[in-house]
Amino acid sequence: MSSRTVILQLICPDRLGLVSELAGWVAQYGGNIRHADHHTDFAAGLFLSRIEWDLEGFGLERELIAGSVHQLAERLDGQAQLNFSDEVSRVAIFVSKQSHCLLDLIWRARSGELPMKIPLVISNHMDLESICLDFGVPFHCVPVSSVNKVDAEKKIIELLLDNQIELVALAKYMQILSGDFLKHFANIINIHHSFLPAFKGAQPYQRAWDRGVKLIGATAHYVTEDLDDGPIIEQTIAHVSHRDEVDDLIRKGRDTERIALARALRLHLRRQVMVYSGRTAVFA
Amino acid sequence: MSSRTVILQLICPDRLGLVSELAGWVAQYGGNIRHADHHTDFAAGLFLSRIEWDLEGFGLERELIAGSVHQLAERLDGQAQLNFSDEVSRVAIFVSKQSHCLLDLIWRARSGELPMKIPLVISNHMDLESICLDFGVPFHCVPVSSVNKVDAEKKIIELLLDNQIELVALAKYMQILSGDFLKHFANIINIHHSFLPAFKGAQPYQRAWDRGVKLIGATAHYVTEDLDDGPIIEQTIAHVSHRDEVDDLIRKGRDTERIALARALRLHLRRQVMVYSGRTAVFA
Amino acid sequence: MSSRTVILQLICPDRLGLVSELAGWVAQYGGNIRHADHHTDFAAGLFLSRIEWDLEGFGLERELIAGSVHQLAERLDGQAQLNFSDEVSRVAIFVSKQSHCLLDLIWRARSGELPMKIPLVISNHMDLESICLDFGVPFHCVPVSSVNKVDAEKKIIELLLDNQIELVALAKYMQILSGDFLKHFANIINIHHSFLPAFKGAQPYQRAWDRGVKLIGATAHYVTEDLDDGPIIEQTIAHVSHRDEVDDLIRKGRDTERIALARALRLHLRRQVMVYSGRTAVFA
Amino acid sequence: MSSRTVILQLICPDRLGLVSELAGWVAQYGGNIRHADHHTDFAAGLFLSRIEWDLEGFGLERELIAGSVHQLAERLDGQAQLNFSDEVSRVAIFVSKQSHCLLDLIWRARSGELPMKIPLVISNHMDLESICLDFGVPFHCVPVSSVNKVDAEKKIIELLLDNQIELVALAKYMQILSGDFLKHFANIINIHHSFLPAFKGAQPYQRAWDRGVKLIGATAHYVTEDLDDGPIIEQTIAHVSHRDEVDDLIRKGRDTERIALARALRLHLRRQVMVYSGRTAVFA
Repeated sequence: MSSRTVILQLICPDRLGLVSELAGWVAQYGGNIRHADHHTDFAAGLFLSRIEWDLEGFGLERELIAGSVHQLAERLDGQAQLNFSDEVSRVAIFVSKQSHCLLDLIWRARSGELPMKIPLVISNHMDLESICLDFGVPFHCVPVSSVNKVDAEKKIIELLLDNQIELVALAKYMQILSGDFLKHFANIINIHHSFLPAFKGAQPYQRAWDRGVKLIGATAHYVTEDLDDGPIIEQTIAHVSHRDEVDDLIRKGRDTERIALARALRLHLRRQVMVYSGRTAVFA
Repeated sequence: MSSRTVILQLICPDRLGLVSELAGWVAQYGGNIRHADHHTDFAAGLFLSRIEWDLEGFGLERELIAGSVHQLAERLDGQAQLNFSDEVSRVAIFVSKQSHCLLDLIWRARSGELPMKIPLVISNHMDLESICLDFGVPFHCVPVSSVNKVDAEKKIIELLLDNQIELVALAKYMQILSGDFLKHFANIINIHHSFLPAFKGAQPYQRAWDRGVKLIGATAHYVTEDLDDGPIIEQTIAHVSHRDEVDDLIRKGRDTERIALARALRLHLRRQVMVYSGRTAVFA
Repeated sequence: MSSRTVILQLICPDRLGLVSELAGWVAQYGGNIRHADHHTDFAAGLFLSRIEWDLEGFGLERELIAGSVHQLAERLDGQAQLNFSDEVSRVAIFVSKQSHCLLDLIWRARSGELPMKIPLVISNHMDLESICLDFGVPFHCVPVSSVNKVDAEKKIIELLLDNQIELVALAKYMQILSGDFLKHFANIINIHHSFLPAFKGAQPYQRAWDRGVKLIGATAHYVTEDLDDGPIIEQTIAHVSHRDEVDDLIRKGRDTERIALARALRLHLRRQVMVYSGRTAVFA
Repeated sequence: MSSRTVILQLICPDRLGLVSELAGWVAQYGGNIRHADHHTDFAAGLFLSRIEWDLEGFGLERELIAGSVHQLAERLDGQAQLNFSDEVSRVAIFVSKQSHCLLDLIWRARSGELPMKIPLVISNHMDLESICLDFGVPFHCVPVSSVNKVDAEKKIIELLLDNQIELVALAKYMQILSGDFLKHFANIINIHHSFLPAFKGAQPYQRAWDRGVKLIGATAHYVTEDLDDGPIIEQTIAHVSHRDEVDDLIRKGRDTERIALARALRLHLRRQVMVYSGRTAVFA
């Protein structure tokens, strides 16, 4: 069960026979399929597929699979992504001053629950340096102000490139990345501390309290240029009552934030998320 | 346990000794307190209290309690509301074409779960007449258009007055009541089919689908002039996935709507809700 | 989207190439697959598949599909079940004295949410006759006692056969069906008012209260000879507190029971449930 | 809001005038009540009360309050517990090999979310020593076997006494404490990895998987001599599906365990839990 697998994610225009064609492609090399999930968005006319099969016993050399998948995707006029379950992603965590998501992600990476390495943590403040040192995670402080923002982002991009980072997790990073940054690095998951689209932007807990809601939430989503409008991966909620002050919302919110972000990262890292048309299909 | 009780709800400026003063007032007449709940909103400087005690054995005649409570409230510079658990509220249900909330409320009233009578159902369409007839609930159709809205609302107000209605439940009533209507009748609970403040206004399920959320919700709230901005009583949620079409959101939403509305009505009718500063304290 | 579909459910020993073989079989007749779900139970060595495709445009006459599926299943040494989405199941509802699940199921059948007809309701009491009459559902009272149990069950079986019943929903039917009954009619879904396996058997809410739990639940499951031990389809929960008396647990429980039973029936009727090894795979 | 408070918890036989008497007692010293919660268990004939008021401005010296409370309790034939919000409890955490609850509790203590100190961690294994050292928490390994159990428990009791421990949190401690141990130290909260009373005892996740449940849970409870039968403080749940292997249940369960244990500890440490008749009232 823990053996290595190949994971194919493919999006293409919907037409007859696609499941058969994909499964047939795996079968012709003797692949033992572990999971096969498909979704058709009839409105968009799109077919999405995620197939996972054993690498062992597969009749194509590991290094030849990508080429063959590429041909398959071209034939279907689609886009394919290929991954292997034994690849451990290199993930940078961005934080500001709050430690709860950071500590949670470090622990989940350590315990193997999240298949990722954390080559570095980047923060615009020094507060969380010591916790990183305790766990042996390199910490880089890159202060950001309205004056130095361009330079700061340039420095951050360099750090990401130098460390061959594949994914960034914004674990309560209280800065907005510019559109220019996103042009250089776009694979980013953010945790927003509200039940989007409610309370976009700043101070969501204060505003939730002001509105007198009975439930608060957290949303893990991919980052796009439109603030808090990216494709949603996971949402969680917590009950609140009139007894809860804003500080209580913040405290209760920390648990929902940690869970939503950790689940979203796990889904992403196991290649269970497919993004299309500003939304996600989550094969969980 | 099922004996009759007196329920006092009081809001007044916060100061020392209020719990003692209220409990002492009940005690001086030998009242046996069943529930005593208090809440202090420190920011607003307000004290809220709900005390429920046995009518049996209480040393004040039932008809004299109101006067004494009135004096008590005046002394505390507050506002009091007095109710008796054996009073059954007269509730009008407003509907349009969807039956799920209506049928649910009729059943809960019948079974005794909601302590209310339903003297009439008002709708702007004829669709739900037969279901009302089946259950012996008087049905009134008052069509509403941009042309006749003033007259229609006038007719509705008359129906409410003629039937001594104390509370209106908007059970998927797809018309917006005017500010003028609310001046004549203001005790109204609405069910909105979204997790407010997300998706205020029309078509919340379609917009939730468009946004690609992973949770949908329903909100039961008191109606105020600002659409969907009234004090929230109860919110419920349901999980959705990429497999769900808009119709599935609507279907799943029906269950959350029914539950949220029924809970809110029960809380209101049992005098467990107190409204202040645009929000609610719910003593549940 | 609302067009008619063919639904194939197949269980067979796991081996290489099954997804391809099944999808290929559909493709060879030009079937347009809407949903394809698979699950492999590695411990049991079993492969489960549910494929749903458009009837329209499929290259096999409707009445020939079963035969072809039969051959396919034989080749795979498996068991197949074939259904069409336009078939409306004939479901008998068994009740005793409580109406909440019954009314809920009638409404969901009426509204089209549950694709079923209710040719009859059977009860061991007369209490719910009038509600059935209101909705035009035939009601049969078959009293059951320790003395007449054999005869009563015989009569019930006759009613089921006479009405060509395919599925029985035990909607708070407070009698235990005998092993002998199950030999004659086995397609039965029950709602048990606890979070199984906690509080099997009688009086679950009283026992939940006695134990001081903070959550109560409901479980919809297939009925087997071992009481409350059948394959679980759906479980729901509700929060309770020290303020809740047993009657409150019963009241809160009604909502979880209704939801769990309705969801389970919908999943079953849409052929989204597959039973194997005393458990279910639910393709939702 | 963050000022110091006095917290009184009192249980006594129910009778008329108790709320008034307690509130009057606080009022006579000019106490500013922040929270007042009461519960009457009518079946047991017991009255429970939790009152929290500002220490500042209270007309009794801090060290004189206990004596006065003692007299009050005697007069009511009840039992009182007195605490001050600025007291930080000394809590020992017991673990075996799993780190998730331990790390979570250390973090919550550090961040101030849990008002407690952790003077020591005790384990029957060495695995978690390094994580304790990282965080500067003293770690003691006390191996337990069937042969040395009496001596081991004696040594543990000594450690608890030497460190003036007030509360023990069993954070996945895979040993059963003897009845004799409980006679020497009884203030213990355990996290059990099932939705009690389902799956008492060993291997709950394996057994939950075997049974095919659709929800798993965790239960935080006080420890008594009867294994897994102590008063329940908090229960949490997580959804599972046929896709989840036992390892997935264990993984999902870790999050519910952490949350349930942390919530229970917080409730206990803030004196929001009252135990009586084998159950708890939780004033949250």
